[in-house]
Amino acid sequence: MSERKEFHELVPPERAHEAIASLDLGGETEQVPLQAARGRVLAERIDADIDVPGFDRATMDGYAVRARDTFGADEADPANLELVGAVHAGEEPAVVVEPGTAAEISTGAVMPDGADAVVMVERTDERDGTVAVRTSLAPGDNVMLAGTDVAAGERALGPGTELTAREIGLLSALGRATVPVRERPTVGIISTGDELVRPGGDLDSAAGQIYDVNSYTIAAAVEEAGGEADLYPHAGDDYDEMERILVRAADECDLVLSSGSTSASAVDVIYRVVEQRGELLLHGVAVKPGKPMLIGRLDGSAYVGLPGYPVSALTIFRAFVAPAIREAAGLPEPRTATVRGSMAVEERYDEGRLRLMPVGLVEDGDGGTLVYPVDKGSGATTSLVEADGIVAVDPDTAYLAAGEDVEVRLFSSEVRPPTLFGVGEDDPALSRLLDRVERPRYLGVGSREGVRRLRNGVPDVAVTTAGDPGIDAVDLGGWAREWGLVVPAGNPDDVTGLADLVDRDLRLINRGTDSGLRRSLDDAFAALADERGTGRRDLTDAVDGYDLTVKAHESPARKVAAGSADAGLGLRTTAVKLDLGFVPVGEEAVRVLANPDRADKPGVEGLRRAIETGDDVFGALAGISR
Amino acid sequence: MSERKEFHELVPPERAHEAIASLDLGGETEQVPLQAARGRVLAERIDADIDVPGFDRATMDGYAVRARDTFGADEADPANLELVGAVHAGEEPAVVVEPGTAAEISTGAVMPDGADAVVMVERTDERDGTVAVRTSLAPGDNVMLAGTDVAAGERALGPGTELTAREIGLLSALGRATVPVRERPTVGIISTGDELVRPGGDLDSAAGQIYDVNSYTIAAAVEEAGGEADLYPHAGDDYDEMERILVRAADECDLVLSSGSTSASAVDVIYRVVEQRGELLLHGVAVKPGKPMLIGRLDGSAYVGLPGYPVSALTIFRAFVAPAIREAAGLPEPRTATVRGSMAVEERYDEGRLRLMPVGLVEDGDGGTLVYPVDKGSGATTSLVEADGIVAVDPDTAYLAAGEDVEVRLFSSEVRPPTLFGVGEDDPALSRLLDRVERPRYLGVGSREGVRRLRNGVPDVAVTTAGDPGIDAVDLGGWAREWGLVVPAGNPDDVTGLADLVDRDLRLINRGTDSGLRRSLDDAFAALADERGTGRRDLTDAVDGYDLTVKAHESPARKVAAGSADAGLGLRTTAVKLDLGFVPVGEEAVRVLANPDRADKPGVEGLRRAIETGDDVFGALAGISR
Repeated sequence: MSERKEFHELVPPERAHEAIASLDLGGETEQVPLQAARGRVLAERIDADIDVPGFDRATMDGYAVRARDTFGADEADPANLELVGAVHAGEEPAVVVEPGTAAEISTGAVMPDGADAVVMVERTDERDGTVAVRTSLAPGDNVMLAGTDVAAGERALGPGTELTAREIGLLSALGRATVPVRERPTVGIISTGDELVRPGGDLDSAAGQIYDVNSYTIAAAVEEAGGEADLYPHAGDDYDEMERILVRAADECDLVLSSGSTSASAVDVIYRVVEQRGELLLHGVAVKPGKPMLIGRLDGSAYVGLPGYPVSALTIFRAFVAPAIREAAGLPEPRTATVRGSMAVEERYDEGRLRLMPVGLVEDGDGGTLVYPVDKGSGATTSLVEADGIVAVDPDTAYLAAGEDVEVRLFSSEVRPPTLFGVGEDDPALSRLLDRVERPRYLGVGSREGVRRLRNGVPDVAVTTAGDPGIDAVDLGGWAREWGLVVPAGNPDDVTGLADLVDRDLRLINRGTDSGLRRSLDDAFAALADERGTGRRDLTDAVDGYDLTVKAHESPARKVAAGSADAGLGLRTTAVKLDLGFVPVGEEAVRVLANPDRADKPGVEGLRRAIETGDDVFGALAGISR
Repeated sequence: MSERKEFHELVPPERAHEAIASLDLGGETEQVPLQAARGRVLAERIDADIDVPGFDRATMDGYAVRARDTFGADEADPANLELVGAVHAGEEPAVVVEPGTAAEISTGAVMPDGADAVVMVERTDERDGTVAVRTSLAPGDNVMLAGTDVAAGERALGPGTELTAREIGLLSALGRATVPVRERPTVGIISTGDELVRPGGDLDSAAGQIYDVNSYTIAAAVEEAGGEADLYPHAGDDYDEMERILVRAADECDLVLSSGSTSASAVDVIYRVVEQRGELLLHGVAVKPGKPMLIGRLDGSAYVGLPGYPVSALTIFRAFVAPAIREAAGLPEPRTATVRGSMAVEERYDEGRLRLMPVGLVEDGDGGTLVYPVDKGSGATTSLVEADGIVAVDPDTAYLAAGEDVEVRLFSSEVRPPTLFGVGEDDPALSRLLDRVERPRYLGVGSREGVRRLRNGVPDVAVTTAGDPGIDAVDLGGWAREWGLVVPAGNPDDVTGLADLVDRDLRLINRGTDSGLRRSLDDAFAALADERGTGRRDLTDAVDGYDLTVKAHESPARKVAAGSADAGLGLRTTAVKLDLGFVPVGEEAVRVLANPDRADKPGVEGLRRAIETGDDVFGALAGISR
């Protein structure tokens, strides 16, 4: 094996924060056009350099007068003034209001010389060149003096102000076409590893290729934090190529982030480049995830190496790097919402370092919040969307009991927990019905595991084909689905049923034992065994591939389509969708069961209604019926 | 006067919401590149069409083995396997693991045929082509099976999902280079009125021109709501021009918003165009502000006319139009924060329609929130930034008592009330010191009004030059400033002091009676009157322009610079800044006084510290000293 860097001394998380804070991420001033200023942060104080308004302005439609001429006037005894002209908004007055005269004036118009008040049109009568004013006015009535709103020299906005619609309004009033704002730190993102392919590219799975997840995830997170993300070409595990790309990124950006590879060789290469071309401030932080984090400088730029797994990379980015980007961009820490909830299950953890544990939230029947850990490990990208926030577990906390009160930091203040948390059987009709529920979360863990979790009280609903599970639950409705063997198009082997799998040399792809489909298959094998007067196990031992199980309802059929098996356990609707042949074996009932305490939750109610009114969904899928 | 539309029948606000909801604002589907998908909303369900991972993947660095070969192995009795090759991430295995053999494998690499488990390198010893495995493995150990993360056919993300970093991560993993998202409604913004000039353009104040505030404010608010704003050229009050621009905008956009003019003639023209080219659904809503709102259709697009004053336009936009834009863009209502607080002052209002009252917030000494109305009326743009949110006052509520509990809807969930709310004298050193406080709010209402408000308990601090105000307050510190008469450069009239204003034919520009400068001036006139054995009023009556007052500390000097006066009341520092002459009269002490209950507030403490350490500020300003 090649030499590997081992991180024997993990530094405490505070040291990592300090190291990142010591880096220079830019944050100079740039001028941007007013239209592009939204969301940016003022770099300097803006003092008004003009009066707003720039002239004494009428705030009513009416007549500009000398207030003194109206003293004592009322409905019974109006003051009669000679109409000498008119002033409209946007024009220079061509009239002077001498004693005893008045000029028509529009809202927003310049007060003509001589006039010091405006009488609203409703309190006047105009006839034959004379205006009768039926009220007394004081000087300044219905006039906004020049500079009343903002006067030249006044402080208008301070440095550090985040520019939203209203600040942009004030800047417009001051006539600012450009605004000095803090530069956004530029962040170069380098993904490493020979195995990565950009989304949209062709993937050679047999050669172990996977799509690059970290580049796009981290780029989006950089922008959420107020930085500007630049994606650099992939670097393989070659030293010279890596050096060239890292140096180019360091040259062009304030901060270089590397991420993407979990392979030790890529990490080694980066480590060597940073050590030789720059300065490594620390490596290895006592936090889970994130142990192999690197922090340093590279050719005058800041450098942070993120862990390779997407959830780890994003968690570490949010906890350590995002605050530094916001700081450089001048943005305040977001008002991160925190939620208190109780652990839905117990959780053990005993590695003696801070754990940033991703968790999902679900509201229980009493409006309380249950918190459950979401950690599939091993780089699962679905964990990214199955969590709502993080519970920080202290290094000296080895155990969280079920029911224990914890504080969850939501990923953002706009995170809203799902209205419906469902688990259980994976089903094509269900996928479509869930489209009609607002913010559902559904984990296709199979019927058996779904029922187990419903019994344990975490999810709102479980979807099962396994018949009556014998637990207290509210039946929200269901449908039936035709299942059997998915075979190549045209059924070239003339498969007629399960007996062929036992008796002939055919390779099957099966589903796991948590799946409802598998249970139906095993029941059918048991019936066949009864017929033959033997045991089920004797039959299934004779089936090639009986133990080859794959995850989701379409997976066996896709293996058949790819030519790697002769038959796959599956649904008629999948065979139709993938243009494959189908040998029917039976029909199974899909039931949606709700936690009885939560049948009234809006999301649960929404799913019940979706099933009730789902005839269009059932009708559109072959082999699915109510 | 021209004919004017009167809105005699105001419809209730719910009718306006219904009318806007009946309009079609687009919301079709478009494909965007993954890099541009952040913040967008999925238009369709995304089912996985590949397995992730696409192959059985090693999750550890170590050796790929057949688990059966390790059964019973432990530290004392390792299983010795023949090393037959290596598999690295991103390459197709060139080796088959037969019974009794092992292959070196990297994290992320494809499991070679024959192998069903990975032993981590730490539990092995390799020597002379033999790997000693010091532990027993089960099939699947340290292997992530193909499709375990997401399997082809599984539901990955539902329609309506807002795309943040984590959803973008999942889409990357699925290899999606483009994403179907809801179109952003396009919103054409037309500002009307002959008097408007775009920011950056030359302003002819004498002709009543003002900068266009609404276009930029509303454009920013449209984008905050998830729409795409397009600014159209100004339309004057001419029917044909207005028709041409409105029709073009209707042709190009989903929604046309007009705003900008307060002039009745512009409103009349729009009204006629919409009536003749489209359909007016309603005009006049019983809400303050916003009475003259128009809602209709124009050549197949939606049309809304907003009131002319910026605060009114933004308030009505937020209350009525933004929700419709979000709905069309598929965005959820933002988690609008609401805050409860108590009215700091009483407020009367008796117009019998819903009032959306802009308010500012200030934290009192006990951590409670005080709420004060911010409504300068008359189109003041500063009200935009002086408010933190809205209190909706029912049509039948005519009076809110001081201390009454109200609910404030913040402008966004990220709004944070200022850490410091100050009022009082306008001062150049203060402007700079405030830059060192986080999120301060300061209203330059003058010394007298500032002290009055501090006494009433609303602000945290008052800044005054008026000496001891005789109220209970904590003195945070202060400085001195030299004041006098600002005269044209070179002092062409040889002004030597106040006596010249009385005795010679010189025109003065004064400050208002709330200003501390004015008080100092009046004190100096009183001293001069004493000297001459006469009354102060006798002297000031002889001063041309004594009653000509302007708003801020630089304003008189700027009038002098503009040639409209011979002398202005002001500061030495202003004269130096504007390259004008200066005739010193005296020095006044500026004191910063805090509400004694709030001296410990972070913002108050921050200002105290800024004064204490502000020698660089005082030193940089002529005529200012500690």
